[in-house]
Amino acid sequence: MYSFMNDYSEGAHPRILHALIETNMVQAKGYGEDMFTQEAITLIKDKINSPNSDIHFFSGGTQTNLTVISAFLRPHEAAIAATTGHVLVHEAGAIEATGHKIIGLEVSDGKLNPEHIASALSVHTDEHMVKPKLVYISNSTEVGTIYTKKELEEISRFCCDHQLYLFIDGARLGSALSSSQNDLTLPDLARLSDAFYIGGTKNGALIGEALVINSKCLQEDFRFHMKQKGALLAKGRILSLQFLELFKDNLFFDLATHANQMAWLMQEAIDLLGYKFLVHPSTNQLFPILPNSIIQQLEENYQFYRWSEVDKEHSSIRLVTSWATTDKMVTSFIEDLKQLTHSN
Amino acid sequence: MYSFMNDYSEGAHPRILHALIETNMVQAKGYGEDMFTQEAITLIKDKINSPNSDIHFFSGGTQTNLTVISAFLRPHEAAIAATTGHVLVHEAGAIEATGHKIIGLEVSDGKLNPEHIASALSVHTDEHMVKPKLVYISNSTEVGTIYTKKELEEISRFCCDHQLYLFIDGARLGSALSSSQNDLTLPDLARLSDAFYIGGTKNGALIGEALVINSKCLQEDFRFHMKQKGALLAKGRILSLQFLELFKDNLFFDLATHANQMAWLMQEAIDLLGYKFLVHPSTNQLFPILPNSIIQQLEENYQFYRWSEVDKEHSSIRLVTSWATTDKMVTSFIEDLKQLTHSN
Amino acid sequence: MYSFMNDYSEGAHPRILHALIETNMVQAKGYGEDMFTQEAITLIKDKINSPNSDIHFFSGGTQTNLTVISAFLRPHEAAIAATTGHVLVHEAGAIEATGHKIIGLEVSDGKLNPEHIASALSVHTDEHMVKPKLVYISNSTEVGTIYTKKELEEISRFCCDHQLYLFIDGARLGSALSSSQNDLTLPDLARLSDAFYIGGTKNGALIGEALVINSKCLQEDFRFHMKQKGALLAKGRILSLQFLELFKDNLFFDLATHANQMAWLMQEAIDLLGYKFLVHPSTNQLFPILPNSIIQQLEENYQFYRWSEVDKEHSSIRLVTSWATTDKMVTSFIEDLKQLTHSN
Amino acid sequence: MYSFMNDYSEGAHPRILHALIETNMVQAKGYGEDMFTQEAITLIKDKINSPNSDIHFFSGGTQTNLTVISAFLRPHEAAIAATTGHVLVHEAGAIEATGHKIIGLEVSDGKLNPEHIASALSVHTDEHMVKPKLVYISNSTEVGTIYTKKELEEISRFCCDHQLYLFIDGARLGSALSSSQNDLTLPDLARLSDAFYIGGTKNGALIGEALVINSKCLQEDFRFHMKQKGALLAKGRILSLQFLELFKDNLFFDLATHANQMAWLMQEAIDLLGYKFLVHPSTNQLFPILPNSIIQQLEENYQFYRWSEVDKEHSSIRLVTSWATTDKMVTSFIEDLKQLTHSN
Repeated sequence: MYSFMNDYSEGAHPRILHALIETNMVQAKGYGEDMFTQEAITLIKDKINSPNSDIHFFSGGTQTNLTVISAFLRPHEAAIAATTGHVLVHEAGAIEATGHKIIGLEVSDGKLNPEHIASALSVHTDEHMVKPKLVYISNSTEVGTIYTKKELEEISRFCCDHQLYLFIDGARLGSALSSSQNDLTLPDLARLSDAFYIGGTKNGALIGEALVINSKCLQEDFRFHMKQKGALLAKGRILSLQFLELFKDNLFFDLATHANQMAWLMQEAIDLLGYKFLVHPSTNQLFPILPNSIIQQLEENYQFYRWSEVDKEHSSIRLVTSWATTDKMVTSFIEDLKQLTHSN
Repeated sequence: MYSFMNDYSEGAHPRILHALIETNMVQAKGYGEDMFTQEAITLIKDKINSPNSDIHFFSGGTQTNLTVISAFLRPHEAAIAATTGHVLVHEAGAIEATGHKIIGLEVSDGKLNPEHIASALSVHTDEHMVKPKLVYISNSTEVGTIYTKKELEEISRFCCDHQLYLFIDGARLGSALSSSQNDLTLPDLARLSDAFYIGGTKNGALIGEALVINSKCLQEDFRFHMKQKGALLAKGRILSLQFLELFKDNLFFDLATHANQMAWLMQEAIDLLGYKFLVHPSTNQLFPILPNSIIQQLEENYQFYRWSEVDKEHSSIRLVTSWATTDKMVTSFIEDLKQLTHSN
Repeated sequence: MYSFMNDYSEGAHPRILHALIETNMVQAKGYGEDMFTQEAITLIKDKINSPNSDIHFFSGGTQTNLTVISAFLRPHEAAIAATTGHVLVHEAGAIEATGHKIIGLEVSDGKLNPEHIASALSVHTDEHMVKPKLVYISNSTEVGTIYTKKELEEISRFCCDHQLYLFIDGARLGSALSSSQNDLTLPDLARLSDAFYIGGTKNGALIGEALVINSKCLQEDFRFHMKQKGALLAKGRILSLQFLELFKDNLFFDLATHANQMAWLMQEAIDLLGYKFLVHPSTNQLFPILPNSIIQQLEENYQFYRWSEVDKEHSSIRLVTSWATTDKMVTSFIEDLKQLTHSN
Repeated sequence: MYSFMNDYSEGAHPRILHALIETNMVQAKGYGEDMFTQEAITLIKDKINSPNSDIHFFSGGTQTNLTVISAFLRPHEAAIAATTGHVLVHEAGAIEATGHKIIGLEVSDGKLNPEHIASALSVHTDEHMVKPKLVYISNSTEVGTIYTKKELEEISRFCCDHQLYLFIDGARLGSALSSSQNDLTLPDLARLSDAFYIGGTKNGALIGEALVINSKCLQEDFRFHMKQKGALLAKGRILSLQFLELFKDNLFFDLATHANQMAWLMQEAIDLLGYKFLVHPSTNQLFPILPNSIIQQLEENYQFYRWSEVDKEHSSIRLVTSWATTDKMVTSFIEDLKQLTHSN
């Protein structure tokens, strides 16, 4: 049984574990005030070419999102997100629990653009409604699509013009930036957003997300918010050590590139067999539309998520590849799908 | 430079790391629905002799406290804690941020008793005030003291009689239960509290706290609350794997016993040199009162926390030992203190 | 200049003011523990034929909604409402500010039915999402429509079957129950809902809404929640005195009936002139669709709300009548509209 | 039976009611956008000599406090208050429910001074604790004492120097400013605080508090916060109309002066009978210490609050006078107390 359920089915890349072992008995200060964290911060600032950004390490994406959004917004201010946005549907009301509404916008491909955002602004006109103040986007999105540099620049400019904060959920940022269709860089993200995070959990780390806050005004007192939300780990080092390892050479991008390549192999094969995709694939998430009978047979040997019913006889499924996906797993799946297709 | 700052200065006990490495490439379900987590839950239920308790794993203490208290209480209900209680002063308002007041009670040794709690109840009499509903105690406490079985039974009975929940912060539970003065067991805690947690971070784990919810009524929908507070890790396995290792034999208690023994050696030596303690030591935290001049000299070679000013010339310091504290560190400290004492 | 902006443009019905004057110098206990409040509670319980219901008085609708919903729900639970629902769009995020998401459902006429609610339940399936727990409906709705007894019974049964609370916003309940198309009674509301409120502010009171909580389990400690939200007025008597006056005979329904009749006169005239309505009118809110040119001319002598653009040349407006609307105001508007229509 | 329970036992001063009646049928805009509100705002700005202040009207004190504090503070920031402060103990956790801790300081007479505030700052030193940001004081205080101009200037300067907001709860501001010991004026309050409110409910209004926000930075978007907390009344006019009446001549101060004079008569008589006071009286609240036996007999004819047990045989009670207290009530009480004293 192979799993294509998600990109966090395994532990961590061996180099990550090695980094933890190697430094294990060094005594260090708690709560992220240690030397490893300082080193990782310096390294990431260099990689994003933004010396005045602040870097903070979190243990997970929901925690990052809720800490950021509640720290940035005043009580009457709201976030704007696509209805597919992770914060809107898959975080058990984490943002609302901190007091803020999320205004959901229907979009076809998981991506917001200035017109969407403008439509939200146009109907929030006075103090009887919340005040939209932060735009939340994900890159790659929850349906595997990515933003181009032009698209991100447009959103960024729109946000500046309308005094909106732009926050980018980068749980799968590695996969986005390693996509063959990508033209964005880490420095672009630092330049174009108020804050974004670099996801480690889904790209080879044991756990960990590196938050980057670019706007001076939003940096103040941020560690208070982390502490208050339970996000300051006593052993903060174990987060930063992993990012040190991921970014001290090209490991972060190598792992993401591998995940994308594995996805690409599957995509090509599925294409050749004549199947369509719910959304055109760009990264490590594929949403092929298959006959229900074949899906059922695949489930005997593979784990994946049934995404949506397309018609009475077809459904889309979600296949996720990762740094840990092997050629063998991919080949096995492709062969089985071929055989099932031809014998159906 | 040796550090006695805290019990989380190092990474994890080697066996913990080994457990992570050994299982690293096994594919498992996310969010704590994996087989390791199931196994750890079964093991802990057995150790606490409470098959109907629910077990959940968190990445830190503040996160555990805020999730528990906000899940258990209705909006108008409040927690009661000693003014030394971690939730009251050292969590940046984490509990209040979820909407709940903490009623602080002045106590001399970090420990609450029924009289303290009764005094809080007596002044909260109507709907113009919050309604006290949950008693928060720590074992060991923030000043290193521990509860006896008789004391805990009295609090537990009082809470039952007054429809108060009893929640025990066990960030340093290992150290408490391994104290030479302790007569409590894990099954006692399960029997006498509504919920408690077993601290891993401060007792050899990389990170992790195991929450035990004993009361049926408080168990319902608890995973929703975890998700909402950002506490459900995608790779939930990395928490449970550590508890599996700590409890599959006596490792959890062995590590805590070692920490206590190291503290005992220091305590004995400090005693012999004629110094007093702010609070009589029971566990791995010592609060000796030393001349400021000596403290200053010690700081050249040792890291520790200056706790409080006692008089113009004396202060208390906090010395914390852990599973990772070595004889060499202890001996060195004792020798230096002896020498400084005699030459002063 | 006459105003059809809303049903709270004037002060209070003279009898209401008279009741306040008459009792003005009587000394009474504070915070709703006075004899007037007791009397009003007894009277309302009798009118709704529900002796075990609890009655509480609030100064406004948003305050009522936020106190009720935050008191009833646990942190991970959410409300379900139509996208036109007052709580969803016109309360500045009041519900979210207490920590709860509102799941918005698109409906054509402001009314929810079991199918709508079922669709929300079907996509909220696990702890990664909020748990829908309360259904919020308004009667009359924000677009002036009303629920029939059969419709309300169906929703009520569905809520019981799915362990959902049913809460009815009755800011304009008088108008709904006085509609010529209505077949519901106050006892029906008490029988079919967990809680509802009887709006005074929009039906002749100076200020005031009377909340009725029917479910035993939801009644406990409710005054704590009111106090915490700032809803317990020191001079609680001034709210209950008004409801005493409204319900001691038929005043409440007389005022609402008058408002509906004034609306009916306008509706009939608009109909005769050949104009359509955005929503078929049932109560004291009309949404006629008029040429923009005529709207502009009407605005010179009448105040009303431009509701929505229908096409390039037509918009819907909202006309609201009340207990204070006079024949003269209505006649004047009708005459002017006739004249504008014919001369256009 | 006469009541000295509080200063809100009656309805409103007749002139207030008259103002409501007189304007009753005028059509006005909702939510405080009417002409009466504009007029009241202009009038109050003039009275406080602060044209750039913002004025908002609320229906009660708890609502004002929770809206102000939650609007002013970021999530990690806390308020500082005396342990007698209304927000700390008598608002059912209203402030904490908006997410903020209140740091309580023990004081003897209900009044804070810079040393108290400095002591709170000195123990809140890093991000593991909340950040004190707002100082809450009441004038008159909850025990009837008042601040002198010098005292308020010192607090104000301290707050400026330490970037703390100063917020003054003026539920009984009329009584404070009308005290024979007072040397503060309304313009002083506007000059020395970031915000304060002028209490109407306890000084002759039906309901209503007028909030004054002096700091430019704290004024932004304040109506959003009011709406979100349910504080924007649809018929906002009924609040402002009362303040128009109170301030169009000297009515506000006349009523408060009367209340203080009634208290003074009682104080003088109690003094003469040889009784002590818990706190030296300054305003309309007296806390005499009487034998329990006499208290019990007084309770047969008078309503008042038993405040605290002083020793086994004596308690303090609270006597509150108001604009509505008559000579007859006061004389009757004094005579009865005299007789009981002599016959005891």
